[in-house]
Order: sequence, then C-alpha cells, then structure tokens
Amino acid sequence: MPDLRKDPIVGRWVIVAKSRAKRPHDFDAPLSRRANRFCPFCEGNEYSTPNEIMAYRESGSQPDREGWRVRVVPNKFPALEIEGSLNKRGEGMYDMMQGVGAHEVIIESPRHLVSTSQLTEPQIREVLWVYRDRLVDLKKDPRLVYGMIFKNVGAAAGASLEHTHSQLIVTPIVPINVWEEMTGSLEFYNYRGRCVYCDMIQQELAQEKRIVLDTPGFVAFCPFASRFPFETWILPKNHSSHYEHIQKNEVEELSGMMRQVVGKIEAALDRPAYNYIIHTAPFDTQELGHYHWHIEIMPSLTKAAGFEWGTGFYINPVPPEEAAMFLSEVEADFRETETFSTRQIG
Amino acid sequence: MPDLRKDPIVGRWVIVAKSRAKRPHDFDAPLSRRANRFCPFCEGNEYSTPNEIMAYRESGSQPDREGWRVRVVPNKFPALEIEGSLNKRGEGMYDMMQGVGAHEVIIESPRHLVSTSQLTEPQIREVLWVYRDRLVDLKKDPRLVYGMIFKNVGAAAGASLEHTHSQLIVTPIVPINVWEEMTGSLEFYNYRGRCVYCDMIQQELAQEKRIVLDTPGFVAFCPFASRFPFETWILPKNHSSHYEHIQKNEVEELSGMMRQVVGKIEAALDRPAYNYIIHTAPFDTQELGHYHWHIEIMPSLTKAAGFEWGTGFYINPVPPEEAAMFLSEVEADFRETETFSTRQIG
Repeated sequence: MPDLRKDPIVGRWVIVAKSRAKRPHDFDAPLSRRANRFCPFCEGNEYSTPNEIMAYRESGSQPDREGWRVRVVPNKFPALEIEGSLNKRGEGMYDMMQGVGAHEVIIESPRHLVSTSQLTEPQIREVLWVYRDRLVDLKKDPRLVYGMIFKNVGAAAGASLEHTHSQLIVTPIVPINVWEEMTGSLEFYNYRGRCVYCDMIQQELAQEKRIVLDTPGFVAFCPFASRFPFETWILPKNHSSHYEHIQKNEVEELSGMMRQVVGKIEAALDRPAYNYIIHTAPFDTQELGHYHWHIEIMPSLTKAAGFEWGTGFYINPVPPEEAAMFLSEVEADFRETETFSTRQIG
Repeated sequence: MPDLRKDPIVGRWVIVAKSRAKRPHDFDAPLSRRANRFCPFCEGNEYSTPNEIMAYRESGSQPDREGWRVRVVPNKFPALEIEGSLNKRGEGMYDMMQGVGAHEVIIESPRHLVSTSQLTEPQIREVLWVYRDRLVDLKKDPRLVYGMIFKNVGAAAGASLEHTHSQLIVTPIVPINVWEEMTGSLEFYNYRGRCVYCDMIQQELAQEKRIVLDTPGFVAFCPFASRFPFETWILPKNHSSHYEHIQKNEVEELSGMMRQVVGKIEAALDRPAYNYIIHTAPFDTQELGHYHWHIEIMPSLTKAAGFEWGTGFYINPVPPEEAAMFLSEVEADFRETETFSTRQIG
C-alpha cells in the first residue's frame, strides 16, 4: 500500500508508491525506445491488463474480450489503491496516511492510435461519457473526495505507453492545486459576486486576442497568464462547477472542440507531446457559484527547470496572443502518424 | 521588456519573455545535440558573453579577459531586465507589470567542466561566496524583493549550456513558492514557537533513517515527503534565515558537503541531470526566527505529468529512506566525464 506523506512546511502531499519502488539499477527505458513492442492496450490483448471495470462494447461481447470501443481497467501499477482504510497517523512531526484511492486507465480506442486528434468525434464523445460515468460511480465512496482526469501523450509529457489512453486518479484529500483554485475563485466571488471564469470568458470574447475556437456552447483560448507556450483552455460558456453534470448536447459539442483544438496544436507544433487535465470541483460539494469546470491542454515544449521549481513562476517565451493567432488560423492535423516531436522552445 | 502577468484565479505569476519569443519554426535543438559546439563560457571566449558584472580573477588580469576563476555575466537572453520601472497596470480583469529584475549567470570554472562534483572544494567555496556577493549587492535595489539562485545540470534538468554554471534571478515580487514556505513556516512558529526546519533537523538526526551526510555544522537528508527520487536537502544546523548571512567557516564546510552530496548522487544514479536551488528569505526582512535557509538538490529522474500538473501532488517511486541508505553508503563520483544519464524512474 502506498504512503501519502505531507510536507510539514507547505502542506504539499506526496504519494510514496513503494509498490513502484525501483532500485537504481532497474530504471525504465524512455518511451521512445519502446516502439514495436507488444501493446497491452490493443484489442485482442485484453488478457494482459487487470480485469475491466467497465467498457462500452458491442452487444453480446464478453468482458475482457474483443468487441469494446472504450475500456476502463485498473492501473497495473497504481499510485493509490482502492482497498483499506486511511489509517491517518503521525511519525514525530510528520503526518501521513495510507494511499487509499483509485487509479484507473481509460483506453480510448481498440486500435493503436496515439492521440485524441486521431479519434473520430463519436469516439471522443464516448470517452467524455466514460469520464462522467467513472466520476459518478467513484464519488459514492465516502473515503474519496476528488477525481482527477488527465491524459499524457508522448514521452516528454510523461506517458509510459503510447496507445491513446487517459487516467483517473481519485484521492482521499483535496489536492493542493485544486484547493488553490477553489479558494482563489471563492475570494473573487466573495468580492465581486461573479464567477472569475465567467468573467474571463466574457473578456476573452470581447477582446478577441486570445481566442482559438469559439462555438455556441464552448470557447477555447490561450489564457492571459499562460504558463506554457500554446497552453489552451476549453471552457463551457454556461456556468457549471462539476464536469460530471455535463449534458448530452454538451458532450457532442465538446468532442468536436477537443478534436479540433488538439489537431490544431499538432499542426502548429509538429505533433508535440502534450497533457490535458479536466479541472472540476471536489466530490463533496453541490453545484458551486464560484467554480467553473474546464479543460487545460498543455503542450510539452519547455522543461520546468530550477527557476520554476524554486519560485512557482513560469517563463513562457511565446506570448499567448501570438499562440492564439497561430492556432486560430492553422488547419487541424488529423493524420494517423505515431511520431512525436521532441522540439523545445526557450 | 518582458511582461509579468498574474493568473486571476490562483495568483501565480508568469514571465512572458517576448525577447525570447520563438515562432513555431525556430525551436531549439535539445542540449544533447550540441556537443562539440563552441562554448561561450570557456576561458578565452569572454568576448562572446555580455560584459562581466564581477569576477574573482588573478591580480593584474583584465575584466572580460582570461585569468578568472569565477565570473558573473548578465544572461544574454534574460527572463527579466534590470532597466525600467515596474509600471503596474491592468488589462480589464488581468494584472500585469513590466518584467523588471535581474538575470545573471555565474560561470563556475574557466574549464569546460559540467558538474559541481568536478570542481575542487576551493572552487566551490568561491562559487558560494559569489552567490553571497551578488545577493548583498542586488538587495540594495528597492525595486527588487527576492533573489533565487539555482543550477540546472543536463538537458533533462533544463540546462541549455553544458559548461558548469548557476543562475540568479531577482524578482520584483515574492515568488508564490517562497511565499508558501514563509507563511507555512510562520504558522508552525506561531503555533509551536519553534522553527519547523530546526525541528526537522532534530528529528532526522534522532531517527537516522534519512541522513545522507552529517558534519558538525550541516546536515544532508532525503526529506520525509520527498517529491522526487533521491531528492536531498542540505541545511545549516545553526538557525539562519538568509543565505547571504553565511560565515566564512560555514562556506568552507558547505563546499565540502556540496561536493560530496552531488558526487554521491552521481555515483548512485549514473550521473543524472539535476537541479539545485537555494531557498532563502526575501530581501526586505531582518533575520527571521521562523525561516531557515537551505539547499534542495533534485535529480531529474521522473517527469512531471498530467497528474502532478493538475493536483500539485507528486508521485515518488523511491521511498526517501531507501534513497538515503543508498546515498549514505555509496562513494562519491568525482570523475570528469561529460555524459549525463537519461534514465528514468517510475
């Protein structure tokens, strides 16, 4: 069982995942050297993952067999484990608990595709529904308070397998970054009586300087204080704090938006590695006036170095206005290529 | 002049360095491809850097000529610039100011060495003194409030030049990570009446589970809530909040400690890329009872991926107790090799 350990100064939590422990002599080779190896996520290889938690499958097909379109399995090397109690305790001045939680993998296609842009809109739609289904299911567990859905594409973005997949980690404490978003947006709400994200949408649509894509229900823009070159956020125009409250028509529109925006980033930057993260409210809250779920897409073009680690400042060599102008004009790239650029900016 | 832009939700600042702006077609090649190129930091090539700010040189030698041992120059592509006013202003709901500050490079050796472990103790001593000299000088500027000294070694740690060097970035606002350390340690101090770092030193020396090296005046250990495998902190045993208050005998002891600890990490992990950062109090404070300067050394073995970006949690696959046992036993590697491992853990 992994430990959850708290830094006594800044309150940051660390998962010390002993089950993943490696001695210095058995480090992994980077992803780029793994091409042409066996892929446990491809259709036909279902036996090589833990048993599936759920799947969207053709009627009549069997669990853990062929015939699925989207498939959710436990992570084989979980950062947090679902069984057990939290067992909160101290070690002298330090605080810790057991690493209870969930760590699931959402396999987004039975075929060996490598990016969201290579999926069809109906496929992305099903992926977005699965995200919702898993959050709705896991929030029933009273030990768990937050569900983080994210996707790593390419070795430079931390992916260890190439086959297109997302991950869901559900934690027994609200992560510090989520906490900061919740309290920051609440302060704004208390002071101004409005949602800070709704205000941002309004200003971005009025200024038109940082818009990447604008549809009736969603907007994509490069944020004013972008940490990374070509960082792009997607927000629903209608205020909503919880991703899992998403409606059918919204999923349909969002799937097209996701495909377009990722395709544009890939066209602009020659298929960079990237992450996306769904930012949503904690489980234990009702619909909140001050928080607004959204998706942050971050191409991996720069490396966090000593300065970023030390200060929490970021240095972004590409003004978001330039990035947005480029992205809004470029035509999306939907090709089924497997190569990722390792180019860097900065 | 770069912009400093503030995220309106969490208050995070970003430096948008337009002078470094790159179009998508002119990204840098990674460091690893630059071997054998001309090195602007080597002795004899002084003309290829901006004019030196200071240097420790042989008596009789001329500025910006040969004969130096440690040399400080402005960064040729500065993240912040020293001339100009802050010009704080708004753009609708967003806050910004001009990127006033300092960005200097400390070239640690006239020879083309690549890591702290390859310097002699007297050389490291001079580097540590230069750090102090620059902080003492820059804190006289009333526009500037914080000085961050850090070192990136190897491309995976964000270095863009191989020749061993550190950087100093001085900012007009207290960085958010520093602010969190200051307020977190102040809370502990208000509650317990003691410095949280002094308590950590005491517990680590008593438990002996995470000690890497212990000398009369300093201690190196892998912190209880290590974010990264083999993360190691070095703290002075005598309480002191400001690095620039360091004494001559402390510099002598610390230089040996730095060389040993970096050499041990390089022996254990086959010369990984790494960062170190000096954590010290802001300029505008007197000696503080609640804060304790220290150095954090972080080998670059894992990549921050979607989960870390989203949550602020870290996943560390190597328990600090195992890392410390390994480091305390391994013999330091001081060889003058130029290769860096790109192995990864996790």
